[in-house]
Amino acid sequence: MVTLADIQAASGLLEGKVIRTPLVHSPTISALTGAEIYLKLECMQKAGSFKVRGATYRILSKREEIGRGGVIAASAGNHAQGVAVAASLAGVPATIVMPTWVSLAKQEATTGYGARIILAGDSLEESIEVAKRMAAEQDLTFIHPYDDPMIIAGQGTIGLEILSDLPDVQCVVVPVGGGGLIAGIATAMTALRPGIRVVGVQADACPSAREAIRAGHPVTVEARPTIADGIRVKRTGEIAFPIIRDLVQDIVLVGEEDIVDAVLTLLERKKVLSEGAGAAPLAALLTGAVQVRPGEKVAAVISGGNMDTFLLERVLRKGLYTGGRMIQVRVVLEEERGSLPALLSIVARQGAVVSQIFQERGVPGLPVHQMKVTLELEVRGLPHRRELIAAMREAGYPVEVFPED
Amino acid sequence: MVTLADIQAASGLLEGKVIRTPLVHSPTISALTGAEIYLKLECMQKAGSFKVRGATYRILSKREEIGRGGVIAASAGNHAQGVAVAASLAGVPATIVMPTWVSLAKQEATTGYGARIILAGDSLEESIEVAKRMAAEQDLTFIHPYDDPMIIAGQGTIGLEILSDLPDVQCVVVPVGGGGLIAGIATAMTALRPGIRVVGVQADACPSAREAIRAGHPVTVEARPTIADGIRVKRTGEIAFPIIRDLVQDIVLVGEEDIVDAVLTLLERKKVLSEGAGAAPLAALLTGAVQVRPGEKVAAVISGGNMDTFLLERVLRKGLYTGGRMIQVRVVLEEERGSLPALLSIVARQGAVVSQIFQERGVPGLPVHQMKVTLELEVRGLPHRRELIAAMREAGYPVEVFPED
Repeated sequence: MVTLADIQAASGLLEGKVIRTPLVHSPTISALTGAEIYLKLECMQKAGSFKVRGATYRILSKREEIGRGGVIAASAGNHAQGVAVAASLAGVPATIVMPTWVSLAKQEATTGYGARIILAGDSLEESIEVAKRMAAEQDLTFIHPYDDPMIIAGQGTIGLEILSDLPDVQCVVVPVGGGGLIAGIATAMTALRPGIRVVGVQADACPSAREAIRAGHPVTVEARPTIADGIRVKRTGEIAFPIIRDLVQDIVLVGEEDIVDAVLTLLERKKVLSEGAGAAPLAALLTGAVQVRPGEKVAAVISGGNMDTFLLERVLRKGLYTGGRMIQVRVVLEEERGSLPALLSIVARQGAVVSQIFQERGVPGLPVHQMKVTLELEVRGLPHRRELIAAMREAGYPVEVFPED
Repeated sequence: MVTLADIQAASGLLEGKVIRTPLVHSPTISALTGAEIYLKLECMQKAGSFKVRGATYRILSKREEIGRGGVIAASAGNHAQGVAVAASLAGVPATIVMPTWVSLAKQEATTGYGARIILAGDSLEESIEVAKRMAAEQDLTFIHPYDDPMIIAGQGTIGLEILSDLPDVQCVVVPVGGGGLIAGIATAMTALRPGIRVVGVQADACPSAREAIRAGHPVTVEARPTIADGIRVKRTGEIAFPIIRDLVQDIVLVGEEDIVDAVLTLLERKKVLSEGAGAAPLAALLTGAVQVRPGEKVAAVISGGNMDTFLLERVLRKGLYTGGRMIQVRVVLEEERGSLPALLSIVARQGAVVSQIFQERGVPGLPVHQMKVTLELEVRGLPHRRELIAAMREAGYPVEVFPED
């Protein structure tokens, strides 16, 4: 059981210890959806996600029960950093068990907050087993990522902050992994505003809460790879489930492309870096998976911003390609003097920028007097792309273009 | 002359029209500098920068004097979008003259806010001439980007908001281009908190305000290319200059690499996308160009976030290389069966990811029985990089590594 009073107690304990993250209006995203969209920026929270709230409350509220060796958790993601920061705020040692394949960036972020790291396990499940065994053997307190009433109460403080900043909020949209975040927010907000609509969002790739609601109890689902790895949890928590069943109106699903587009929209229009899970609520709003009424005041919880830089770089490149700002052009040229500079002159005259050139000769299907050239070009957008291609074709170059128009 | 009363009037007029941007504490950046650092996130402002404040106040406060045809401005950057949004808020038509080379992304952002665009001029200076001529001929009101008391008063509202959110702020660090932003903020904050320290930041590449202070009057400086194009203004405004001279303690300079690092730090640690100019105050704090005392409460004005995606992608790649997460490895191999797969097996065993392979044969300096292979690799950080290189060398591959350790 988690009550409003628990969440208010958590809020009092957390004050001054975690960041009271901003709730920011987005005129652009409002215009795109027709509703009034506000973003609760938990990506700006300490350690880059909401996880520090629940973990800090869990540790501080039962400080005297913490084992001599401190706390232990297993995670390949935000829970690791959240527990590390929470333990450091509470002044207790933290041990984090991470799967052996976890990126050094995540290891460094976690040790940077003062935690000890144990690399053990080829999967997260194996790391969790190691952590539980160590907890029993070494008098450490195991901190669960979501299935714990104190954790849920801590995450619920987000709901209180949204209500304080936007008292007439009508709908809140929340990412759902194990269910701790939405259970806390739903408990706080429906207690104070009966009739408020709480909607959960999951990735198509891992619809555990959606299936749990359908089955009437938590079920274990298959989890496919997803950019929203923060909500890739195969089974809803036992404590969160009845709260979600009773207080959440709907759990909607979003696809991978929609999540990528939402990450790009947040970055380009609001200058906010979100991780995939964090952008899922926005994806649900932008695709209409969550239906909103004109003018409805909606808060979208952007739950975290810890996206790996390699992944972000790929997301940006995808955005450039789909936004028509980057193209690949392939053309077969006669191998005569000046044929390549002539082609490149057209590109230059049209104001496009060459970022890469590949030239192939003597490949199957190509006569010996011809060569194939592939250009990766930066253009100013779809109209510019069309002008450029038209100019090349007019000059007699039978270009193929990728992606197709 | 700009007074506190002007700025308070601007604040009243702007309320509910522009976004009251958040002031967010950054524990990480505070730990890096020793002071308590707060970020004023004007990158989340409408149109992505502070420019909309001054432009809106300029238009609304003299609404009756606006020409029949509305307002006109010339800009290749944030001023264009700021004036477009301001005009649309005030319900007057806007014409923006942009240099012919401006990106379609910026054109689209500007037309997206309802402005008419004229592409004219090979340089910004030429565009300004065109705009001024059109203003005279077509009864349009020319909106200056900075040298106008109303513009300065509008930008000064940022200072009032910082004081309201952090009444005991001791120092504010502000990017300086034409000087309108810092003049407004300094006027507001020194009037309400005599003794507060106001520091300006410019890029090494364009130190116009620094030179103006040295000379005792505005001077025109050479402007080199810089990632901080938003503050690449060759001459301080005539109205801003005496305000800066009287109220600003110091103008400090930062280098290009420092600005890039600050952009990366904001993105990775605070999940905030800043443009180069916007990150300049943080660069000044991180490099020590602005000296702070332990515990001093410092507000850094992150003035805008409109960074082009192509540029951002390059910044990310640079960060990956300098952070030791991406490397290039070059090696000369015997052209015998299995030499390349043997090399790649080592890479795979060490857990590095190959992002690109280049293979060269028959190039100058290379015996015919050898080939040169260049691998671009994703690694987990500097220790992983060292292990990988050691493993390759141990296996007999005399690899060269870039960047060098």
